[in-house]
Amino acid sequence: MKRKSVDHMPCPVARSLERVGDWWNILVLRDAFYGVRRFDDFQASLGIATSTLARRLDSLVDSGLLERRLYCQRPPRYEYVLTETGRDFRPVMLALLAWGNRHFAPEGPSVELADRATGARIDPVFVDRLTGRPVTDAYVVAGPAASDALRRRFDDMRGPSARLEDPPASIEHKRHSTKENDG
Amino acid sequence: MKRKSVDHMPCPVARSLERVGDWWNILVLRDAFYGVRRFDDFQASLGIATSTLARRLDSLVDSGLLERRLYCQRPPRYEYVLTETGRDFRPVMLALLAWGNRHFAPEGPSVELADRATGARIDPVFVDRLTGRPVTDAYVVAGPAASDALRRRFDDMRGPSARLEDPPASIEHKRHSTKENDG
Repeated sequence: MKRKSVDHMPCPVARSLERVGDWWNILVLRDAFYGVRRFDDFQASLGIATSTLARRLDSLVDSGLLERRLYCQRPPRYEYVLTETGRDFRPVMLALLAWGNRHFAPEGPSVELADRATGARIDPVFVDRLTGRPVTDAYVVAGPAASDALRRRFDDMRGPSARLEDPPASIEHKRHSTKENDG
Repeated sequence: MKRKSVDHMPCPVARSLERVGDWWNILVLRDAFYGVRRFDDFQASLGIATSTLARRLDSLVDSGLLERRLYCQRPPRYEYVLTETGRDFRPVMLALLAWGNRHFAPEGPSVELADRATGARIDPVFVDRLTGRPVTDAYVVAGPAASDALRRRFDDMRGPSARLEDPPASIEHKRHSTKENDG
């Protein structure tokens, strides 16, 4: 299951995914967010083989998302807790939860978010930290550390295509001329 | 590479991940958000084999995240555009981008988000859609469609452990007594 690494890519999405690997790792992180810390509890929750779970926990420790912590000396027993980097993965988890509830829960949500103080249900949406404005018309730009190649790529994409969302229908049908292969 | 399906799990995170599979699929989606639509452009961006890319695009079409659209009749050529479900994946992508910039870009960000109207850089944070309050003290609760088993599980986790974030240090070290195996 060795896969091509994307760590050489400057893209922050690629580098992030490199740390969480496939989705089983994300389910381990999900359980860690829910408060699971011990091997047996992870296993009971996920229903995967001991060796597979051990490998996943090790890889999340190696990536710096979980920390292995001794909680019993005789015999030595470890638990797994989120590091700061791991805790910062929380918005990704919230976004996945909201997306799943919206599109893949035809019977209604079985898991929801609630505000601890009020108990009210929460529907998370992104706003800009500084201005509080909804992030609806954002686009990607080259940052200070971008290579020249990346800069050119983003310049090429400037305009409706770099919006991080689908362009409106009026723009959508203008680009039909280029001849390209379809796999 | 056939993996165990998690689609029977009621968890919306698990169901979401089932749709995007491993992280190469998410990179395909990333490019779709950046405006890439054609096979050759995906391939130039991702540098993966034709057959692999074709399989990934097919799986994203099957999962309802991309739509295959004829853009040239002779010869028949297709492009791949985000469906509504695919576009709704955007917050996950934004969260991954922000996380990557925060933790895995020691040289500084090479990709950033900017507001289309003002050009100002955007730092996305989650707030509740209704109240506008930051989502900092949210916890997961059983939703209307939760099974009895899931309800019990969340009841067990009630309290600091179901916060979707690490409990404060004062709470963190109280649970050391249960004896469990470590893999």
